[in-house]
Amino acid sequence: MIIPRISRMAAYLVVCLFAMMTSAQNQPKTFTFTQTSDGFMISLSGVKVLEHSSQSPMLYIGLGETNITTFHGNFYFNEYLIERRGLAAYEVMSLTDISVQIGFKEVESPALLAVVTISRPTTRSFLTIEATATARTTDRMWLRIAAEKDEHVYGGGEQFSHFDLRGRSFPIWTREQGVGRNKSTLLTFLVDQYMKDAGGNYHTTYFPQSTFFSSRKFWCHVNGSNYVVMDFSHETFHEIEIRDTSSAKVLINTSPSMLELVQSFTDFNGRPPPLPDWIHNGAILGVQGGTQKMLDYYKQATASGLKVSGLWIQDWVGRLTTSFGDRLFWNWKWNQTLYPNLDQEIIALRRDHDVHVLGYINPNMNIEGDMYKEAAGKGYVVKNAQNGPLQVNFGDFFCGIVDLTNPEAFEWYKSVIKTNMIGIGLDGWMADFGEYLPTDGVVLHNGMSGREVHNLWPVLWAKLNREAVEEAGKMGQVVYFMRAGAAGTAKYSTLMWAGDQNVDFSYADGLASTIPAALSMGVSGMGLTHFDVGGYTAIPLPPLNLVRTKELLLRSAEAAVFTPVFRTHEGNQPKLCAQFYSDQDTLNKFARLTKMFSVLQQYTKQLVNEVVTSGTPAQRPLFLHYPDDARAYEIQYQYMYGRDFIVAPVFLENQSQWNLYLPAGKWIFFWNGTTVTGPADVTVDAPIGQTPVFFRSDSTWTNLFKTVAAIKEGDECSRVSTGDGDLQTCRP
Amino acid sequence: MIIPRISRMAAYLVVCLFAMMTSAQNQPKTFTFTQTSDGFMISLSGVKVLEHSSQSPMLYIGLGETNITTFHGNFYFNEYLIERRGLAAYEVMSLTDISVQIGFKEVESPALLAVVTISRPTTRSFLTIEATATARTTDRMWLRIAAEKDEHVYGGGEQFSHFDLRGRSFPIWTREQGVGRNKSTLLTFLVDQYMKDAGGNYHTTYFPQSTFFSSRKFWCHVNGSNYVVMDFSHETFHEIEIRDTSSAKVLINTSPSMLELVQSFTDFNGRPPPLPDWIHNGAILGVQGGTQKMLDYYKQATASGLKVSGLWIQDWVGRLTTSFGDRLFWNWKWNQTLYPNLDQEIIALRRDHDVHVLGYINPNMNIEGDMYKEAAGKGYVVKNAQNGPLQVNFGDFFCGIVDLTNPEAFEWYKSVIKTNMIGIGLDGWMADFGEYLPTDGVVLHNGMSGREVHNLWPVLWAKLNREAVEEAGKMGQVVYFMRAGAAGTAKYSTLMWAGDQNVDFSYADGLASTIPAALSMGVSGMGLTHFDVGGYTAIPLPPLNLVRTKELLLRSAEAAVFTPVFRTHEGNQPKLCAQFYSDQDTLNKFARLTKMFSVLQQYTKQLVNEVVTSGTPAQRPLFLHYPDDARAYEIQYQYMYGRDFIVAPVFLENQSQWNLYLPAGKWIFFWNGTTVTGPADVTVDAPIGQTPVFFRSDSTWTNLFKTVAAIKEGDECSRVSTGDGDLQTCRP
Repeated sequence: MIIPRISRMAAYLVVCLFAMMTSAQNQPKTFTFTQTSDGFMISLSGVKVLEHSSQSPMLYIGLGETNITTFHGNFYFNEYLIERRGLAAYEVMSLTDISVQIGFKEVESPALLAVVTISRPTTRSFLTIEATATARTTDRMWLRIAAEKDEHVYGGGEQFSHFDLRGRSFPIWTREQGVGRNKSTLLTFLVDQYMKDAGGNYHTTYFPQSTFFSSRKFWCHVNGSNYVVMDFSHETFHEIEIRDTSSAKVLINTSPSMLELVQSFTDFNGRPPPLPDWIHNGAILGVQGGTQKMLDYYKQATASGLKVSGLWIQDWVGRLTTSFGDRLFWNWKWNQTLYPNLDQEIIALRRDHDVHVLGYINPNMNIEGDMYKEAAGKGYVVKNAQNGPLQVNFGDFFCGIVDLTNPEAFEWYKSVIKTNMIGIGLDGWMADFGEYLPTDGVVLHNGMSGREVHNLWPVLWAKLNREAVEEAGKMGQVVYFMRAGAAGTAKYSTLMWAGDQNVDFSYADGLASTIPAALSMGVSGMGLTHFDVGGYTAIPLPPLNLVRTKELLLRSAEAAVFTPVFRTHEGNQPKLCAQFYSDQDTLNKFARLTKMFSVLQQYTKQLVNEVVTSGTPAQRPLFLHYPDDARAYEIQYQYMYGRDFIVAPVFLENQSQWNLYLPAGKWIFFWNGTTVTGPADVTVDAPIGQTPVFFRSDSTWTNLFKTVAAIKEGDECSRVSTGDGDLQTCRP
Repeated sequence: MIIPRISRMAAYLVVCLFAMMTSAQNQPKTFTFTQTSDGFMISLSGVKVLEHSSQSPMLYIGLGETNITTFHGNFYFNEYLIERRGLAAYEVMSLTDISVQIGFKEVESPALLAVVTISRPTTRSFLTIEATATARTTDRMWLRIAAEKDEHVYGGGEQFSHFDLRGRSFPIWTREQGVGRNKSTLLTFLVDQYMKDAGGNYHTTYFPQSTFFSSRKFWCHVNGSNYVVMDFSHETFHEIEIRDTSSAKVLINTSPSMLELVQSFTDFNGRPPPLPDWIHNGAILGVQGGTQKMLDYYKQATASGLKVSGLWIQDWVGRLTTSFGDRLFWNWKWNQTLYPNLDQEIIALRRDHDVHVLGYINPNMNIEGDMYKEAAGKGYVVKNAQNGPLQVNFGDFFCGIVDLTNPEAFEWYKSVIKTNMIGIGLDGWMADFGEYLPTDGVVLHNGMSGREVHNLWPVLWAKLNREAVEEAGKMGQVVYFMRAGAAGTAKYSTLMWAGDQNVDFSYADGLASTIPAALSMGVSGMGLTHFDVGGYTAIPLPPLNLVRTKELLLRSAEAAVFTPVFRTHEGNQPKLCAQFYSDQDTLNKFARLTKMFSVLQQYTKQLVNEVVTSGTPAQRPLFLHYPDDARAYEIQYQYMYGRDFIVAPVFLENQSQWNLYLPAGKWIFFWNGTTVTGPADVTVDAPIGQTPVFFRSDSTWTNLFKTVAAIKEGDECSRVSTGDGDLQTCRP
């Protein structure tokens, strides 16, 4: 039995209770510090968030050696833990209306080893926990957040394998998501063997975020960009490991409702701007191959009735023939050989068809390009330990990385976007990568280490894009979409996408994984995302022979109808994979689905507006609207699309029916109007082209939904202007 | 910078130096305790073995939660480390001629957290380190042993993947070795997937032992049977984790030579008795199927000229037809239906041919058998948490485990061996298993927990066999061979075998792995082992289609000539695997190899005698005889067979030549008499039937070796009595 000496004097209970009005939400927040016989607990609005006892100290401090190796954006942590000390004894150093300062010690020792200040600044609604280790050499601390057995935990940024994070540990480190992501599949095994452990794991993601969101109605966020591990595998506490012992800062807030909780976090973390209007008019078609091919694809699509809002040409910079096949030439300039007259065609497409052309960029420059040479000459690329330009292996070529911590380099790269991209009329781009910054042997302009900045890189990259667009006066017209992210991304990015899914029906890396990805990103504060229709990564080698089937393409497309953005990708093996243009039947089916997407836009715009104004994500976990339904917390593969839809995409092969859960209320089956009263488990017919979807019977959008559901292949849809904006009607 | 407060007073060097005569080896041992400005170091005979500084404390204490799950003898440890505290400060509590007692503290604290007594008892030659944590709740400690960068470390019991343990961590926990044992192979992956992670890993072994053997000429042994982890991955220390904080005891000894070092450890740990003479006369043939089949195999073998010393019938107890195929019926009684007249045939074989019959037993009893029922009725089986008989799943049937901690049960099981096995004339048996004792939910007669006893089980099992044989007056005539082991096994067992290799040419689980297995077991103090000729585990399922080829069988047999015991095993899939009796060519080749083995017996007996008298293993690492040769420490796949042979078995497929290393001296190639002067890397022809072997030119056995090498298929060998014992001559 462990009894802290210091707290014995306080064997009686001292309750300090002060109520405050929150400035952000105008709700009273009650901060409660309660001393118990063996420690203390701290609650916010009645939600216990911190608890300390001699058996379970709130704070551990320690020291370790961390060896990090990297290969193509995958990172491997080899840890040797030297020390980990539980600070079971404590003394209250000061207690004011707005803060408690607590000194922590080991039980046997009088030495003060850490000081934690828990405060509720008057200007903020949330608790701030600031911890500093005063002990001899330490480089990490573990903060225990109070937990309950039946609590669910979500967030962690974009998580592909598990929406409910409980029961597992999640390292927060931006990196490639991995190919396969499930160590028990043959695919992941083979990728690991032949590509240096590039198979990934359940937690590997481009967009991790040190934020979680508890079913006990609080969120918790670790500030800063250092490596964090969030361990939710314990019954009575969540343990947050932080690699910062001088100024670790953790924020916690509560809200009366789950919905307000997301809002409260986005109040703090920021929210994206609205999507451009044009993006709702139809699909952005991922096409490649030059000006004429782009136009040919467009003509073929519209001739078949597809609604097209954009043409995304990732190879606008030209291509590089490497030993591994075609790759984009990462030298961010219009390639006039491959794309003659592109600037003129962009103008014409926008003017004549409201069709927008999008490009591609990332923060790395091929060392063979003149941009790299210019940047290296000016000292704008990340340097190596010898102070020369760092050249990173990207598979079949080497790149320099623009030093985003160098204000001059930052401005210069913005000017590249403004001049080379916006300047030729591009209305958007994939702002790819952001995860590859090496940790060791890199010298950054601002003096920070690679380990400190690594997780911040995606945010700097988003900020750069944002400023470029703003400075060009194109906010609201241009959209860039990113995969890498962190806290702050929501504030700087315009749109996310789910990265590189395999072209398969796997849970961990296929179409299914895009659902928890959207939901976890949503509760982490970024409510606008979408995915590559059809997935990206094909592995056409035996024994896997993984290529995109027409079925996967169509299942993926039908799911995209109920997301904010519908964008196709040819994938990494365009010729071997099914494409929207592969055959007339696929074109016809895409025509119907893109019409549905387009006609639904009035509803979609409302959802986007909710993201922008309140942070409520477009794709939502059921518990945001059904917080009292226990089942709502356990659902990973269906979501609410706005307040009115329950969407349960078919993500397995060869399905003719699909099971889903409906919470309380009256629900209308989208495809035939059947009414079901929830809560209910239902099985519905799910032929290709009919995503299992229900809508609320009291939705104000019933007529629109019926219009969308009724669209058949071959129907013509036309725009009708109304007082509420454009609507569309469709008829055979 | 960490400065321990207490040792500051001793900023000058205090050297306590006292020389003692060792009782065991009559060598002077110098024990040196030296205080340094920042700690101390302890040397034995000039070898630094312990070192303490504020930066690298000698002792860490801690606490954790360990969840252990098990499946068919595989064990999985899920660890949550709660605390780990470095005890950087210390004070010398007492210092006498034979001991130093040191109190350890944390730097910030005056509290004494552990006491370590390092003593050199007058009756022993080795250092004893006894550590007790006096801190609040702890359940583990880590002791750092001084290390040097270029040091090599061996031992750890029987290690199949790595002979030099440096650079890795080795959990000491007896268990199934695993099927595949290499996480990067498809075979291991598939076994893991379809058999609940039964694929094993580099460290999984039936016979782990918390002993290591350093190239700096000391051994180190952790006493007791608790879980231990030996971590050799650090440059300046080896870290030994011990799950005992009340009476952890670590022993260290040095010797002037590597050879004496093994002897010194076996002085402490015990040595096996001599093998029975008859075992050297030829092969023990693993056959099955009933009395007549046994005799038929024997006739077939001798008709082809095989030298046979024994017939091993593992199915003497009869067979059980299960859904997975034939299994032995684990009810340890002669099955007179399958083996009519066995007792008479045993007598006749021994009397007429000096051929000995061996059986099979393990410490588990099928719950369908009457033995189990008797044992359970008497309370002789391990109990479950509800105090009922524990029934353990062994794949396709359930067993009770005899409670080896219950003296009555122990006696009863001995009587089973004496009556049912020795009583019907069996001259040996495979004493299988010993690794399966569950850790949790088991109630043992002596009140110890499963976790404490698990690693001791193989030793108790060996002791039981030993006592049964001794009490029957059969020592020297009976041999039992075991796979499971621990410290103490060497004292109780008569022979080990390398367990269940796959029937393949893999490094981690094939023929190759038997070489580091023998070498590591040898330096861990058990110098008598052998392996299943041809391996054991076939996996005839696609896509592996793993069955034993004739090539593997012959490569394995030719290697067995240069080991103490030559025994075949039909394997787990006899009909699908190549057998010695598969065709006449194989029989002819086995005839030659068994003759060679038999003719070599005078030499073999000398090696066995060395094991018995000095502990020097029969199969030896090169550094035992060439301690000044740096290459000798890096060789994992060749060995010395006694002082005179260098053996480099061919363990890969399709080899016509083989590379090996010869240390200094003149070496004769066994097969053609070519002389090579070492040190030298040589490539030799290695057709099937000619294990790459060299012998020392100044060997006193040159004539014998030439006789053996000259044996051709079809030669007849006959025994000639000489003053030195029996010798054999062979001619066409």
